[in-house]
Amino acid sequence: MRVNDERAKPMKSRIEAALLDAIGRTEDGAPPKLAAAIRYAVFPGGARIRPHLCLAVAEACGNDEPALADGMATAIELLHCASLVHDDLPCFDDANLRRGKLSVHRAYGEPLAVLTGDALLVLSFDSLARAAIGRPTRLVGLITSLARAAGTPYGLIAGQGWESEATPSLAHYHRAKTGSLFVAATTGGALASGRDPAPWRMMGELLGQGYQVADDLLDALALPHEAGKPTRQDALLERPNAVLELGVSGAIGHLRDLVSHAAAAVPECPGAGALRELVMQVGERLVPAGLKQTAA
Amino acid sequence: MRVNDERAKPMKSRIEAALLDAIGRTEDGAPPKLAAAIRYAVFPGGARIRPHLCLAVAEACGNDEPALADGMATAIELLHCASLVHDDLPCFDDANLRRGKLSVHRAYGEPLAVLTGDALLVLSFDSLARAAIGRPTRLVGLITSLARAAGTPYGLIAGQGWESEATPSLAHYHRAKTGSLFVAATTGGALASGRDPAPWRMMGELLGQGYQVADDLLDALALPHEAGKPTRQDALLERPNAVLELGVSGAIGHLRDLVSHAAAAVPECPGAGALRELVMQVGERLVPAGLKQTAA
Repeated sequence: MRVNDERAKPMKSRIEAALLDAIGRTEDGAPPKLAAAIRYAVFPGGARIRPHLCLAVAEACGNDEPALADGMATAIELLHCASLVHDDLPCFDDANLRRGKLSVHRAYGEPLAVLTGDALLVLSFDSLARAAIGRPTRLVGLITSLARAAGTPYGLIAGQGWESEATPSLAHYHRAKTGSLFVAATTGGALASGRDPAPWRMMGELLGQGYQVADDLLDALALPHEAGKPTRQDALLERPNAVLELGVSGAIGHLRDLVSHAAAAVPECPGAGALRELVMQVGERLVPAGLKQTAA
Repeated sequence: MRVNDERAKPMKSRIEAALLDAIGRTEDGAPPKLAAAIRYAVFPGGARIRPHLCLAVAEACGNDEPALADGMATAIELLHCASLVHDDLPCFDDANLRRGKLSVHRAYGEPLAVLTGDALLVLSFDSLARAAIGRPTRLVGLITSLARAAGTPYGLIAGQGWESEATPSLAHYHRAKTGSLFVAATTGGALASGRDPAPWRMMGELLGQGYQVADDLLDALALPHEAGKPTRQDALLERPNAVLELGVSGAIGHLRDLVSHAAAAVPECPGAGALRELVMQVGERLVPAGLKQTAA
């Protein structure tokens, strides 16, 4: 366990440094308020769970091109930040709070929030491309993976689009909204290290589902100041929520099952054992602290 | 002249086919309304002047990788469509009309308009990457050029961001809003054909400025049904406009000067002569039909 904790530390600094570097490149000469809003949307971050996952998979695959793995991790986190900014807009969730502070449109106004999301989408692809200078042959696969996770028909944007349908496809909705960036993280970590991404999809999908259950627990049980964002929104907006469907202990049991299956789904690779251990460890951290003993 | 018209024809079909192909890839399995809104935002198009310019430059440079040039042309047009959809939103121009029909948010609502712009941004990078499978070494330069034209500090999004500043930098504003995609078109056509993009920047900047003057003429002089979008907006929104500054005949003279300088700025390359002729021809088409005799 100490080994993983030690490895997690430089990983965290690598991610923050890469994000700082990406954001820094956009600022000189930019309209000052937009530049400030972009920085505000990315720092301070949340758990950065998706870029960590991407780097952990890259490490497990040998990580022969660390700059490229860092670039993919950065791109995934920037995409995630972009989607948070746009999802919070008045025409969607109209959320006041995000990561414990005002949402971007509350802090900077709606025009700059739209532009911040747009700019982060662009920066996501730009950062990935710049990281691929030394290994351009891997870039096509990485860009198309990132685009698949972001766009239509199956990415984040499509997931948000299902909310405008009278009869949404729930399977598509969930996979798109919560699974797609986790799949990009696992397959992207493999691709950045020159591995076949296909065997890494299932692990990403299961972790995405697990993370959704953890988010449902947070929405159903936490107070806004604990969650850093509005809670009880799923019941209010009639969105599906695992706690409403399975109860608290059922939801925690389901979360632990998903995490175990995700660990079991780690494909054979040089670092498979350590990665499986890390998945179990991170999975346990997703269970809210007060509820560790609650589950069946 | 006939030679250029003949070449323009297959170019037009190539561009429309590539756009149809890109949009088609996003539809199967997507939320139906979002898919419809995305298609609505791209078809029927305007003059497609930016992708034409990109392909014309690629031809002049030898066009040894036509699929890649088509991919860059497609990416530039998708980016342009994305920016139109977001610029028309209620929090920016609140425009009802675009290309002679309802703007996307008027036809499909604001949530789907935000998502349509987002999806087109993503699709832009995705289409470019897919076109680079046969020549991945050229992809880094193309993606970073596209991102520069789109994002911050100098692209379209930054240009729109200057509208939120109390004291905007007008030079930055103009270059970003009107020049950046023309520069992406000229440098992108060169890059797709394996040429150094730097000598192609000036031509793109001059054409972008010329196109802005043509747009100013349209805004100042045309009726909305002729322009296909609201007119007299610059005076209303206190935006700079060449007609307000120079008068009609002064603006037309300035437009012709810019086009001549753009033609003169075509770098030496196998097809330089034909390209210069094409620039002059297209430039003359930018002068509104009723005003050809007006200029000094």
